[in-house]
Parts: sequence; C-alpha cells; structure tokens
Amino acid sequence: MQVKRQLLGLPSYKPGKPIDEVKKELGLTKVIKLASNENPFGASPKAAEAIRELAANTAIYPDGYAAVLREKVAQKIGVAQEQLIFGNGSDEIIQFLCRALLDENTNTVTADPTFSQYKLNATIEGAEVREIACKEDGTHDLEAMLAAIDENTRIVWVCNPNNPSGTYIDKASFEQFMKSVPADVLVVSDEAYYEYAIADDFPQSIPLLKTYKNLIVLRTFSKAYGLAALRVGYGVGDADFIAKLDPVRPPFNNTTFAHAAAAAALDDDPFIAECVQKNREGMKLYEAFCEEQGLTYYSSQANFILIDFERSGDEVFDYLLKRGFIIRSGEALGFPTCARITVGSQEENEEILSILKEMLQTQPIGQK
Amino acid sequence: MQVKRQLLGLPSYKPGKPIDEVKKELGLTKVIKLASNENPFGASPKAAEAIRELAANTAIYPDGYAAVLREKVAQKIGVAQEQLIFGNGSDEIIQFLCRALLDENTNTVTADPTFSQYKLNATIEGAEVREIACKEDGTHDLEAMLAAIDENTRIVWVCNPNNPSGTYIDKASFEQFMKSVPADVLVVSDEAYYEYAIADDFPQSIPLLKTYKNLIVLRTFSKAYGLAALRVGYGVGDADFIAKLDPVRPPFNNTTFAHAAAAAALDDDPFIAECVQKNREGMKLYEAFCEEQGLTYYSSQANFILIDFERSGDEVFDYLLKRGFIIRSGEALGFPTCARITVGSQEENEEILSILKEMLQTQPIGQK
Repeated sequence: MQVKRQLLGLPSYKPGKPIDEVKKELGLTKVIKLASNENPFGASPKAAEAIRELAANTAIYPDGYAAVLREKVAQKIGVAQEQLIFGNGSDEIIQFLCRALLDENTNTVTADPTFSQYKLNATIEGAEVREIACKEDGTHDLEAMLAAIDENTRIVWVCNPNNPSGTYIDKASFEQFMKSVPADVLVVSDEAYYEYAIADDFPQSIPLLKTYKNLIVLRTFSKAYGLAALRVGYGVGDADFIAKLDPVRPPFNNTTFAHAAAAAALDDDPFIAECVQKNREGMKLYEAFCEEQGLTYYSSQANFILIDFERSGDEVFDYLLKRGFIIRSGEALGFPTCARITVGSQEENEEILSILKEMLQTQPIGQK
Repeated sequence: MQVKRQLLGLPSYKPGKPIDEVKKELGLTKVIKLASNENPFGASPKAAEAIRELAANTAIYPDGYAAVLREKVAQKIGVAQEQLIFGNGSDEIIQFLCRALLDENTNTVTADPTFSQYKLNATIEGAEVREIACKEDGTHDLEAMLAAIDENTRIVWVCNPNNPSGTYIDKASFEQFMKSVPADVLVVSDEAYYEYAIADDFPQSIPLLKTYKNLIVLRTFSKAYGLAALRVGYGVGDADFIAKLDPVRPPFNNTTFAHAAAAAALDDDPFIAECVQKNREGMKLYEAFCEEQGLTYYSSQANFILIDFERSGDEVFDYLLKRGFIIRSGEALGFPTCARITVGSQEENEEILSILKEMLQTQPIGQK
C-alpha cells in the first residue's frame, strides 16, 4: 500500500497537549489559549439554544443541501442560493477547490507566509506551489503574484486579512488585481476574519462576483461567530462554477448541529458588533504596548496580532506557557522572531501584556 | 476555471424534499423516513446529555486528535490508539483512502451493486473502477473480484454487510480472500452495519489486522449508535499505514459535539443490544411478509431489507410516499425492481407492511 509520492514527508497532525495535562505538568490552575484566533466571547446565546433544542435529534442524517442555513446566508450577503457551497470549516472548501482544479500538470500561486492549508492541499493533488514572498509590511505582493501566473496556473490565493500577519489588501489593489488576473484562473479571497476587518478601504468582494466569474469568496463561522467547535465555512462564487464543484463535496459534510447553530448565530448582529468593538479595543492595548516597548508589529485587521520580539518565537511561547498562556510561535508561521497572539478578553489581554512586559524587562530587545 | 475532466458529468447532490414540504404537497400530517438506514430508536440518552452539557462551548476548535474518543474506541475494540483514524462519517475515510492511494495510473475493484461512495471517490481521483457483478444472492463475487486485481490495483472494497442488499461475506470466505489478495493491495472492509450483524459466521475482522497489514476496517456511529446527524466514522488499520494516511485528513474534521456524543454513546451497550434485538424482530416481520406474499428478498444482516416487488422500485416509492413513507427505490441502487426499506419501530413496520399488502392486492406480482 504505497501512498502517493507527494504525501511522503507531509506533516501528520501533531496533537497539542490537552489543557488539563499542561496544567498538571506546569502546576498551573488556569491555562488560557490565545493561539487559534477563536472568539474569546464565545458565540451568540442563540447558537447554544439551537443546539440544546436539537440534542436528542441525532439519528437522522443532516440536510445535505443545508437548506435553512443556505437561505439565511444568501439573504444576509445578498447572493443567490446557488452561489453558495458549505464546507466542514472553510478549510474544506480549500480542499474542494484543490481536488477539483489541481493536478500534477498545474500550478497554484500563494503568498508566503500565509495560511498553510492552501499549500498542503495543493501538494496532496501533486500541483506545483508558487510561493511569493510577502512585502516588508506583511501584505501580499500582488504584482509578483500576477507575474507568477502562467498558462498552467489554476488558482491564486488571496488571504485577506492575511494569516498570520493580519495585514490586508485594500479595495483598490484587490480590484486592480481582479482586472489583471486571466479570466480562466480562479482567485480565492479567503476572508475568514472578514467580520473583524473595519478599515474603510477593506474590499467588499461579494459585489465583485457579478463582474468576475473567476472569483470565489470564503467566509467562516469559526472566528467572529464563535462556532469553531462546529466547523462551518462557506464559499460564494459563480453559480455555474459552484455546481461544477459540488460533486467533490461529501453529501453530508456538516452536522445538523452546525447548520442549526450557524443559522441561529446569523440572527444575532448585535453580538457580532459587540465582539468586533471589543476586539478593536483589545487591539489598541497591544498596539500601545508595542509602541511603548519599541516592538515592531504588523497592523492587523483581524482578531490577532503578530509581534516581533526579536528572539525566537519559541522562547516567547515557552515563557508564556509557563505562566498559563498558550500562543503561537512565529517559528512555524514563517516569522521566526515573532509570536502571534489572539486578542482575548480585556482581562486576558491585560494579564498577558503584563507578563510580556516582565519578559522584556528581564531580557530587553536589541540585546540578543 | 476548468474542473478536472473526470468531474464533468458527475452527479451533484440532489436535495430531497424537506419532510414539511412533502406533507404540505400531499396533504399528509405524518411522514416517516425509512430510507437511509438510520436508527429508528434514536441514540443513547447519554449522547443527548453530552451534547446539552457542551451547548455553550462552541468557540474553541475541536481536539484534532479526538483524544478522548480515540482512547475509548481503542479500548472497546482492543487495538492500539495509533491504529485509528476518525472521519466526518466513514464516508470521509473512503475519501482519505482514495485521495492517498488512487490516481489515473491505478485501478480499484468493487462489487456491483454496492455503496456508491467507493466509485465516486475513485472517479474523482481519476482511477479506473473495476465493478464486479454481485452473485445472484446479492453477495460479492470474491473470486471474480480477486481475478480482477492486477499490478495497478491499489484498493479492493468489501462492503460487509453489503449496502443495498444487506447480504454478507462469511468468516471463512473473508479469511480465504485476505489470504489470496496480494500484500500490497489494500482491502477495505466497510462494516457500517457491523453492530446489526448477528450471524455466527459473520467475520470478526479486527483480530485479522494482526496478520494483514493491508486490511483496514471501517465502522461508524451513524447507524446502530444513532448519531448520523453528527457524522463520526473511523478506520482501524496498521499503525504505520494510518500514519501515512493522516496528512490527507483535515486537521479538525469532526466537531466537538460529535466527539462527545460518540464517546458517550459508546458507554451504553444495553442501548445497542436492545436496538439490535428490536431490529431482528422487525426483520422477521418483513421476512414473514415476503414469504406470505411470495416476494423475493435478500437475506439481510443489516437494519434494512431489499425486496423484489417485480415492478419499478420507483412505483413502490411513489405508492408509499403518497401514504406517508419515504423509502429508497432500487432503480438508483442497481436493483431496479426492488425497494430498500429501513427496518423501523414495530408500529412503523406494521404500518408500512399493511400499506404494501394493500398495494400487492391492487396490483399482484406476476401481472406486469
């Protein structure tokens, strides 16, 4: 049983230590995870209500068409229902796109660093991955990405805001990019953090779908909507293309609970508005801290911030872990001297910043 | 954006009519679905409890390693934890296997008719699908399947009990088959209905894993465990092979709720035993009915029965639908004159059988 050549050496999922084990090992009573850009304020209570109501209704397969959720999302963002495809997280839509469009005779263009799933899925399909270094400020180098496109390019990935930097492509740049990309190359605008982006010139990509049949927009319920545990993401694109994509979608790829919770969460705009506001307040604390401490950071439109601590991100990770905070080291994210921290609740933000201040007092920047 | 050649013409998911719509259209107050082999008795109440307890814990990503569920399943079936891989339904394990092993230079051997997902997923990978007609009695023709294996064969699918016939391969035949299949060809024993199979000579495949590194066994929580809404299946195989397969598994492919409900359901053996007993009692009703009416049926070890009504299965479907029962026509299942009916509760079984009796009185067999 030889697996495909391109799979050999690919990383298998490495389980993180369960929080309980971390507590025991380090003698901590409290461990807070600000590592995966989850919503520190949970989800709308409407989602929990919807789950409780269904708790005993487990035996029947989910609605494979996600009819109720589909109708609500279509109405919310102003598209036809046929323009939508739902995934087990937006990760799964990335998989669908790679599975449908890529093989060893094709290539795909991504930024570098960016979200790791584009490269992983393209590699599984045997496609060439053309990784174009981000600019100094952490944004995609769209001109270089354009130049990398050739007749074998099938997909270009725009992660906006970009993970792990949090930086964004503005409206004018994105529209210019769409004008320049050949009509037979798919542009994926992965907007997992869309709800958090408040910049006036952040692109509104949905209206562009009318002009560009080669655009697909990815959104998720895992971030601002607080439903990461339930795995619901969706793609919005040209209805004909979505229909061609659908055969690679497993027929029952979201649970009944995911459908119901997402549909309920969609009804609670005030919850999202409040989370977005608290996120911006938290972000200001981190920015002020960086400026006070002379740390370089990437200006973020998401719910996380990438800070350059001028030492291995693993050191920062270890320092914080011992004190009860799990964050992401930049080592595995393409920014080795950085750490990526999810903006938490006010209390969490203040606590982690006071620990980081202590770390910088013991070991100031510019000394290593 | 041209999708891969092999995807063109593949069926896209056709949404069934929601039950409420069927009711309205046909003026029915009650519609019962005996179409998808779900458990008519629901799930263990422990599963619903686990879901309720977690209802507000939606914001954090699931444990990608499924540590708690993994430990329980490993212990329950007596294998090492590293021998397990979890899927979003066992459908997803079928996808992993095809994605990892198949491409356009390979072929795969299946029975015909059998579960449709083997062919669909192999086709998406561009592999040749060698479909070997089932024997008269609905069982796999293992000798012919063996003969179809060549140097490009990567996977052979044994659906046991087979869907849609419910027939099974016995222990001696399966062990002889394992002996004969070349060691570099993977045998998938898809045992979605394992819990329902009570025949003394039904194979126990898990102990065979010690001898055959080229065997993987698929099981699911969607049938007897009554958790179809939550999508949890698993594969059990050689630990080295499972590790090679893992990179094609999306990192968070089951929801937190699925993990918790499945783990809780696994604790309730009496519930499963009761469901299995009621299923056998129901099956006897159907068998007695067929014998009384002179109908041919396939002897089933699952929780459904395939009956030859000697007319288009679509006719039977329509007749029952108008009277409030959704079943599966054999037309789309490779048995055009049959219907596949899930064994329901005693009341449901008696009701559907009285409707079928009426149908046969109006339009006896042997008259068309």
